[in-house]
Amino acid sequence: MKKEFAVIGLGRFGSSICRALVEKGMEVLAIDIDEDRVNAFSNIASHAVMADTTDEKTLKELGIRNFDHVIVAIGDNIQASILTSLILKELGVKHITVKAQNDYHEKVLSKIGADRVIHPERDMGKRIAHQIVSNNVLDALELSDKHSVIEVIANKRMDGNTLVELDVRAKYGCNIIGMKRGEEIIVSPKADFQIREGDLLIVIGANNDIERFERQLLDDE
Amino acid sequence: MKKEFAVIGLGRFGSSICRALVEKGMEVLAIDIDEDRVNAFSNIASHAVMADTTDEKTLKELGIRNFDHVIVAIGDNIQASILTSLILKELGVKHITVKAQNDYHEKVLSKIGADRVIHPERDMGKRIAHQIVSNNVLDALELSDKHSVIEVIANKRMDGNTLVELDVRAKYGCNIIGMKRGEEIIVSPKADFQIREGDLLIVIGANNDIERFERQLLDDE
Ligand SMILES: Nc1ncnc2c1ncn2[C@@H]1O[C@H](COP(=O)(O)OP(=O)(O)OP(=O)(O)O)[C@@H](O)[C@H]1O
Ligand SMILES: Nc1ncnc2c1ncn2[C@@H]1O[C@H](COP(=O)(O)OP(=O)(O)OP(=O)(O)O)[C@@H](O)[C@H]1O
Ligand SMILES: [Ca+2]
Ligand SMILES: [Ca+2]
Ligand SMILES: [Ca+2]
Ligand SMILES: [Ca+2]
Repeated sequence: MKKEFAVIGLGRFGSSICRALVEKGMEVLAIDIDEDRVNAFSNIASHAVMADTTDEKTLKELGIRNFDHVIVAIGDNIQASILTSLILKELGVKHITVKAQNDYHEKVLSKIGADRVIHPERDMGKRIAHQIVSNNVLDALELSDKHSVIEVIANKRMDGNTLVELDVRAKYGCNIIGMKRGEEIIVSPKADFQIREGDLLIVIGANNDIERFERQLLDDE
Repeated sequence: MKKEFAVIGLGRFGSSICRALVEKGMEVLAIDIDEDRVNAFSNIASHAVMADTTDEKTLKELGIRNFDHVIVAIGDNIQASILTSLILKELGVKHITVKAQNDYHEKVLSKIGADRVIHPERDMGKRIAHQIVSNNVLDALELSDKHSVIEVIANKRMDGNTLVELDVRAKYGCNIIGMKRGEEIIVSPKADFQIREGDLLIVIGANNDIERFERQLLDDE
């Protein structure tokens, strides 16, 4: 059976989630208190309704409890976000994801029992700072507090070296587990594989090892 | 020499970048037109000053051209964001990263010559939608428009199977290039490696192959 989603609040964050869910073929009910925003989604979402979600009766009438996952993306009006989340929880919605504006907001949402709290601006700030500092690091996946996978561009200094010559494992304790060269993906490259400048390297390891690798091998200055 | 950064606008996005850069040991000048926000950063950033960055003279006096990278994180006031970016460009700042509120804003910033334009809410919306749809997919790295690395949790159905038995490569065209079990990282796991429920798998491949893998292997319903 197709899963059903509801997105409450069609600001930048909510509308981006709504669009992406629709693109993935999901059934999405889009809800906003603002008529213009609802109209803008009438052709995008499966259904779009104007409603104030701080009103319990309205949410009941929408049959919100039958949705598999409800995303609350109300931003500046923190009270409306909290009250909406509380009602959703009381009505027995199984999965609730809520956008938080600040730490106070996050704390309250966790206490209420929101399954997941997201800080788009804060989290993107951290990601971008990481990318800015290490010019060659394009992006990172956190595996845990201690481990990551990063995506780095091989620089001039690495050009022409085989993996044995670079010896990333012995020198920095992390490993190159995959690469992309042009449109070709190379899986678990062998020791005699020769790196070229511009290759995209996938590196896995402990964060402090990865940081040493970034600093010593990648900093072009 | 230590790189010098300036962050203009200390809202959620700007303050998160500022904090993260300081944590990485960088020199950061924090700038805002709002005195309270500046005061809040006087003990966090290397320097914090109150200034209206739409004033060219002020930016010159701050010696902004000597900074390696300036991040413009002014949000709601799109005009102030555009004018600030324009002045920074004219003053010859080497790297300019700007937060955009919408597509119009992004277009103007690109024309001005901003090196990088970021939409925190939009990009996080996409990420979260992806994570929500595929319960077991924790996060993803885009390698290109066509290829990704994803981080998935092995489910009950995979438990006890070796990589040969799962045969992800032949069946779905993508590859498991690394794993995490507890705090242990396993690099390029061998064919006879036995997966357990809860293992964190790092999978690389073309997006459509990865999507088939997610759908057929990971959907628990
Ligand atoms: N009680 C409510 N019921 C339903 N929708 C609401 C309610 N209160 C606010 N909203 C809607 O939530 C949406 C997001 O609110 P917010 O104030 O964060 O706007 P925004 O700043 O444009 O969002 P974003 O930061 O995601 O871009 C708005 O479209 C607003 O109309
Ligand atoms: N001309 C300006 N010069 C310097 N700082 C400015 C100027 N205009 C706005 N700012 C500052 O930019 C910061 C970010 O503005 P914005 O309106 O996006 O706030 P916000 O919504 O809190 O930000 P965020 O979405 O990142 O949380 C504010 O602290 C504001 O005072
Ligand atoms: Ca807002
Ligand atoms: Ca904002
Ligand atoms: Ca704002
Ligand atoms: Ca916002």
